[in-house]
Amino acid sequence: MAERSDPIIKFGILGCNSVARLCRAISSAPSATLHAIAGHSLDEATSCALGNGFTAKLYGSYEELLGDREVEAVYVPLPTSLHARWAAEAARRGKHVLVEKPPALDAEALGEIIAACEGSGMHATFTFNASPNFLENDVRVKPDLDALGALGDAGWYCIRSILWATDYKLPKTVTALPGIVFNEAGVIMSCGASLHFEDDLVSTFRCSFLSHLTMDIIANGSKGSLHVYDYALPFQETQASYYTNSRAWFLGGLAGWGPAPVEHTVTTDLPQVVLMVEEFCRLVRGIKRDGLKPEAKWPAISMKTQLVLDKVKLSIERGYVPVEVLDG
Amino acid sequence: MAERSDPIIKFGILGCNSVARLCRAISSAPSATLHAIAGHSLDEATSCALGNGFTAKLYGSYEELLGDREVEAVYVPLPTSLHARWAAEAARRGKHVLVEKPPALDAEALGEIIAACEGSGMHATFTFNASPNFLENDVRVKPDLDALGALGDAGWYCIRSILWATDYKLPKTVTALPGIVFNEAGVIMSCGASLHFEDDLVSTFRCSFLSHLTMDIIANGSKGSLHVYDYALPFQETQASYYTNSRAWFLGGLAGWGPAPVEHTVTTDLPQVVLMVEEFCRLVRGIKRDGLKPEAKWPAISMKTQLVLDKVKLSIERGYVPVEVLDG
Repeated sequence: MAERSDPIIKFGILGCNSVARLCRAISSAPSATLHAIAGHSLDEATSCALGNGFTAKLYGSYEELLGDREVEAVYVPLPTSLHARWAAEAARRGKHVLVEKPPALDAEALGEIIAACEGSGMHATFTFNASPNFLENDVRVKPDLDALGALGDAGWYCIRSILWATDYKLPKTVTALPGIVFNEAGVIMSCGASLHFEDDLVSTFRCSFLSHLTMDIIANGSKGSLHVYDYALPFQETQASYYTNSRAWFLGGLAGWGPAPVEHTVTTDLPQVVLMVEEFCRLVRGIKRDGLKPEAKWPAISMKTQLVLDKVKLSIERGYVPVEVLDG
Repeated sequence: MAERSDPIIKFGILGCNSVARLCRAISSAPSATLHAIAGHSLDEATSCALGNGFTAKLYGSYEELLGDREVEAVYVPLPTSLHARWAAEAARRGKHVLVEKPPALDAEALGEIIAACEGSGMHATFTFNASPNFLENDVRVKPDLDALGALGDAGWYCIRSILWATDYKLPKTVTALPGIVFNEAGVIMSCGASLHFEDDLVSTFRCSFLSHLTMDIIANGSKGSLHVYDYALPFQETQASYYTNSRAWFLGGLAGWGPAPVEHTVTTDLPQVVLMVEEFCRLVRGIKRDGLKPEAKWPAISMKTQLVLDKVKLSIERGYVPVEVLDG
């Protein structure tokens, strides 16, 4: 958490697409301030600021915002196809970069962003930011903007949560599942895949722009199980629950089995998305003030997520066959 | 429910393997009585009866029990490889047959049982009966007895529940998922598959003898979702819950989304497994007393379940490729 004397990190936002929740989080985070917004045009930036009640400097181009020397950190919620260019450009200008997921269209493009960040001695945090998934006309359904569709958006969370559960170990193979829905432009609206890990761990996921809103994790180990129903964004602002079960077994007689799962509730002082901004600011402070190196964990995790996502696409292209994943 | 004047159906049990729960249900069901138990030997039948506190006639061979003219209905919890022979034999002797799942090793063998029942003008009910899944030395892990292993046991419930959710529509394709665990004898200890239906419905399931006890259904449609955690056997004897959600969406501001799922609880006057025996007795009464035809629904559903199970096996044998399912 920020202390009184800590510097406030000034954020600039590149693009006005689905920015509302994270911008509000930046406004609310004790360590951050929403300093500037850039749109395609000044009109776009103005209407974004007015529409959301943000008070910030407004720029009519991304270039101009990156030229603002007061901007220390840049949030990039642009369509995915533009991430590589603008995240890398921001990094080259010496900005800390917070990129909306998926960070890139494939692992190669993500590698370019990370290289740009490293070249500048910068830190990149690739993160979760829940946003409405089902808008027919959203950038996420346009092949020239977010060609990965539901896989890059909702699927990113799924893959990341699976990797979180494996302590970021990569699967051996990735197999896309038949039954994928594409829109007329060929963008994925709904898909699923199965990841096969060492030690016989198997996980499946399903992501869709066409289904009712759900965010479930179900993990089942040899000795217990875990259920979470709001893993990407908690139902409530400062509280979230998960459910565990262990040593359940059949009861005698005609009764069923038990025990039933137990609920555990975690409370936080700030909403999850604000805590994420705070964590980003903490990392930036560490670099700025204490001369720490950028934390290697986040780009590494993002690269693994992107690599699995690439293999799902490859398995689809190859007709739903298992595709090997090599840790590169 | 049975009325006072209704005849009590006399059950015979073939085999002493994992029979306890259903035998207790037969003893408890108002319409049924546990009349006789047959083992490989009289010793086996005796120790089964004593061990479980059952009072019944004891037979040292299955043949002898089937020769008992008082036995009206036969429950067949034998190893799966013996189902075809003994279920068909019981049917030929004019008994009503309740077969433990999976009813047969493949659809062809199930067809033989159903043909024997039809030839005798009989009715067969293939049903759920929860039993401990993880015993290393259970018949379900022996290739010569229950060659289908976890797929035939836990997987049977999974497939049946999926077909229930589709109103017993068969999938177009079945694809086994990589990561299947076999024991040293080559019997499936853990596996999963993806079923792809018309209308872009996709379902996956996972069944295992190696994982913590779970019985989850998660169904997600375009307008709502359903969660059940004890679908094959309720946690409690006469009560079960399911959870629904609809119209959930992202909330404004920094809050999450909602509403959270709603719990619905169903109570029954008798335990689920006893209700199943009662239903079986109701069908038998309809045939015996009212001259009704055997209900075609149950063998049809069992055949569809078996057909999907066969395709999972075929997909495994072919290297996890999608296998078409033709409604035969």
